[in-house]
Amino acid sequence: MKSEIRNSKSAIRNSLPIGIFDSGVGGLTVYRALHERLPDEHFVYLGDTARVPYGTKSLATVERYATENARFLESHGIKLLVVACNTASALALPAIRDAVSVDVVGVIHPGARAAVESSNGKRIGVIGTEATVQSEAYRRSISSLDPAAVVIERACPLFVSLAEEGWAETEVARSVAEHYLRDLRKSDLGALVLGCTHYPILRGVISDAVGRDIPLIDSGDATADEVQSLLEIRGLSRPRAPNADRVRLVCDDLDHFYVTDAAQRFAKVAERFLGAAPTVLEAVEVWGHDELRTY
Amino acid sequence: MKSEIRNSKSAIRNSLPIGIFDSGVGGLTVYRALHERLPDEHFVYLGDTARVPYGTKSLATVERYATENARFLESHGIKLLVVACNTASALALPAIRDAVSVDVVGVIHPGARAAVESSNGKRIGVIGTEATVQSEAYRRSISSLDPAAVVIERACPLFVSLAEEGWAETEVARSVAEHYLRDLRKSDLGALVLGCTHYPILRGVISDAVGRDIPLIDSGDATADEVQSLLEIRGLSRPRAPNADRVRLVCDDLDHFYVTDAAQRFAKVAERFLGAAPTVLEAVEVWGHDELRTY
Repeated sequence: MKSEIRNSKSAIRNSLPIGIFDSGVGGLTVYRALHERLPDEHFVYLGDTARVPYGTKSLATVERYATENARFLESHGIKLLVVACNTASALALPAIRDAVSVDVVGVIHPGARAAVESSNGKRIGVIGTEATVQSEAYRRSISSLDPAAVVIERACPLFVSLAEEGWAETEVARSVAEHYLRDLRKSDLGALVLGCTHYPILRGVISDAVGRDIPLIDSGDATADEVQSLLEIRGLSRPRAPNADRVRLVCDDLDHFYVTDAAQRFAKVAERFLGAAPTVLEAVEVWGHDELRTY
Repeated sequence: MKSEIRNSKSAIRNSLPIGIFDSGVGGLTVYRALHERLPDEHFVYLGDTARVPYGTKSLATVERYATENARFLESHGIKLLVVACNTASALALPAIRDAVSVDVVGVIHPGARAAVESSNGKRIGVIGTEATVQSEAYRRSISSLDPAAVVIERACPLFVSLAEEGWAETEVARSVAEHYLRDLRKSDLGALVLGCTHYPILRGVISDAVGRDIPLIDSGDATADEVQSLLEIRGLSRPRAPNADRVRLVCDDLDHFYVTDAAQRFAKVAERFLGAAPTVLEAVEVWGHDELRTY
């Protein structure tokens, strides 16, 4: 009897969605990777579009925004939280872990691990926002995995606007990428970490600028690996549904999307990133509540 | 006696600084224009760097941010408020005027008036953020001054990042400008309004892209005209100081600067925009207070 209750409890828990938050729309590349890897799972995504971008903001502010987002998602019932934003992962992971009781997976450590695995002991390049690069979070994470690794970091702030504008394949994007990555191209890299969730959108021009033979590490894929392992280790995987044969589409009605502002713009950029706009999309407020208040 | 009291009161009021707020650093171009035009005045500038940019956000959010900024500045003692941000001027001027008791000058109407005056009855181009262009605030303001005027608006979101990155004079900026302004170049414009405070930084490439003979309307200059007139009409000008011979430098210690986040980054970009970083610069919070609370 006791075991049955436990089973029923864990079945309920395992049926909960995985929470994902990002400063805005960029984390959709992480959502896509998770969705592809874990087709049985459901997701709830929060894009903090009222306060995007995080990459030019301070530690204290990023911590505040990130913990508010995390609490919002936890209050909606999630079994695991993925911090899809590199800046929030780089600056605020300890604060987020203090703020919620579910397991929290950031994108830095998975990306660092994949880079170390791909780089064959050669130098590792990391590109990201100003805040991510200044935090040196990738450098620390890579060093913890391979103390001998040489890490070269470079902030590429214009890439975010280029991706959101839908200019990924333009001459402008190409010349911006060449400008940012000129030095890295000469550095004989073993791998380049795309340390911002917007950057996979610009994969083509980045690869051309840094050299097509350099492996590009997409934090989304690496994070999906880590989430998959964690679900298995913790026994948290969602049971296969009886109708599991149906192909799950991105942005279908099993995945719920929240934004803190400008839902229409989010839907437009989501369509550009994923090929489909969210079926369930709602604008919410996540701030101005204290810790005890439910959302 | 009564008249003396009145004189003393008005002397105190006239000595108050002029408040200026912007979503971030772009409003410094308006500050510079005001500072040049009105060297006897003191200024207090607020850059809402924790929530920048406004140009991709919704009406409700821009209104909330703008009124919080306006109340913060009013609580610091100002005689006049300049809304240096085009997006906030386009979307939130009525809400700001409801929120504070001092006179409020936005940048849209002065820019519209200067455009009508310069355009010789030809078409008027307006470039700005997505929110400003969608609001059609310039179109309405220009039509109120000249119902026959034809207005062509175009959002140029990448210009903001290019200006903040210090890429104003690069080939990248040139090709972005050519891309955005191709249609406007063919439109036989009488004037082009730089409807975002960042754009004057890119004046060179914008002028080349749209045609060097097209007058560019900088809202900063136009707003300085309007503020100067208003101070005279309302008898609000600051009396000349006895040591008025000394040349006032931008960002000297008579002008106070507040930011809601990342003061160091603000100082760096300010130096890029003005040639000098603020002498007095402080990070503050302007949100989470209700109307009755003093800041």
